[in-house]
Amino acid sequence: MKPLILVTNDDGIVAPGIRNLVEVAAKFGEVVVVAPDKPQSGQGHAITLNQPLRLRQVDVFEGIEAYECSGTPVDCVKLAKNVLLKNRNIDLCVSGINHGSNASINIIYSGTMSAAMEASLEGINSIGFSLLDFSFQADFTAAKHFAQILVRGVLERGMISCKLLNVNIPKGEIKDIKGIRVCKQGEGNWVEEFQEGSDPRGEKYYWLTGKFVIMDENPLADIRNLEEKYVTVVPSGHDLTIYPAIEELKHLEV
Amino acid sequence: MKPLILVTNDDGIVAPGIRNLVEVAAKFGEVVVVAPDKPQSGQGHAITLNQPLRLRQVDVFEGIEAYECSGTPVDCVKLAKNVLLKNRNIDLCVSGINHGSNASINIIYSGTMSAAMEASLEGINSIGFSLLDFSFQADFTAAKHFAQILVRGVLERGMISCKLLNVNIPKGEIKDIKGIRVCKQGEGNWVEEFQEGSDPRGEKYYWLTGKFVIMDENPLADIRNLEEKYVTVVPSGHDLTIYPAIEELKHLEV
Repeated sequence: MKPLILVTNDDGIVAPGIRNLVEVAAKFGEVVVVAPDKPQSGQGHAITLNQPLRLRQVDVFEGIEAYECSGTPVDCVKLAKNVLLKNRNIDLCVSGINHGSNASINIIYSGTMSAAMEASLEGINSIGFSLLDFSFQADFTAAKHFAQILVRGVLERGMISCKLLNVNIPKGEIKDIKGIRVCKQGEGNWVEEFQEGSDPRGEKYYWLTGKFVIMDENPLADIRNLEEKYVTVVPSGHDLTIYPAIEELKHLEV
Repeated sequence: MKPLILVTNDDGIVAPGIRNLVEVAAKFGEVVVVAPDKPQSGQGHAITLNQPLRLRQVDVFEGIEAYECSGTPVDCVKLAKNVLLKNRNIDLCVSGINHGSNASINIIYSGTMSAAMEASLEGINSIGFSLLDFSFQADFTAAKHFAQILVRGVLERGMISCKLLNVNIPKGEIKDIKGIRVCKQGEGNWVEEFQEGSDPRGEKYYWLTGKFVIMDENPLADIRNLEEKYVTVVPSGHDLTIYPAIEELKHLEV
């Protein structure tokens, strides 16, 4: 039987990245798409608690069952798993292809990765894909090529101690990219600036901007390998505990 | 010099929990509050990219400098660190006191914890507090008592290998609570149900609900200790890498 593959993203169902990912997924199995009806970048692991969600079947990808959802990327996965595909076994969830980097600490802010993580929490093997190119005209040829290799690898071999992969693909043609490397989440940070301005009514506003700074010399760091033009794959989980600190902080116990 | 303490939350600046936390913080240092102007539960690590943010000084806590922000909890911390307190050293960030549990996997969905995590990413020692009582009339006496012990402990002793604590406080009076335990993030999961209905126009909607299921027998799991009426403290970070899987997945490299 063909595997059932759920496709989602955070840029919205009409973004170019998800069309490319649907094309990859359709080579391997039956595809169902549930994606936000508007861009949801930077939504992190947000869920919608205070209002109802809408789900609407749409005709966006020829011959593919697809739904747009009024909620966040995580909402999309929850609705797919618990409503649309309630009695079916989802073999793989793929999210993206996002524009921009989800490497390093960006995994925390990324709606793309949060959707994939939500699926992994539900026990589904999941891969989030991101291409380091913000342009609407971005060339997805290399991203599709490597996504296909990784989807095949995970479907054929499975995963043992992890259910979630954070995949980032450098900008460039296939020939420019050196290969795929399994990495760790690199240490880096955003140095934030806020653009300050006044609106037409003279009220002050602040608009988030910033610069990413790499702070990791480890050769396994995803951000280092991306700079060297490798596709990076970081096996990821959801346990944030810093285990050595449990002993260190015993003095807080009463 | 008195320590500078940033207070934030995700329930909004007029929620009862933050007033209680401001009172605790004010015992130890100079307090600045920057909190959302509306409830932001379940916002995870969402940030606002596509619109400007507003910041407005408000008179909510007597004698305390306070600002409401139009953005998410993470936006509040970014604005506090990079605009309001740009040239000052923030000694501690406390977030909460949230209503409901941030234990186990809930750390991922929690705006309270995301605000605290954002501060930790900026190098600031941070504590997120949550009281396991959803009622607006919740009694914060015990929560304040234990928050005070923990704030003092962190200010006096600092932290070594971690910058973020996830603190959950059981419902009940001080005498009902057995003490404070440093724990690991417990394994658990939401079994989701969606309430389905029709709106006044006859259009179908889905509303998220669900039941939390504990799946962790480890005596160090926060959710187990909360059930036994301990305040739980989980030293937390931001590295999601599953290190053993790096070797396991080498077959994906090309």
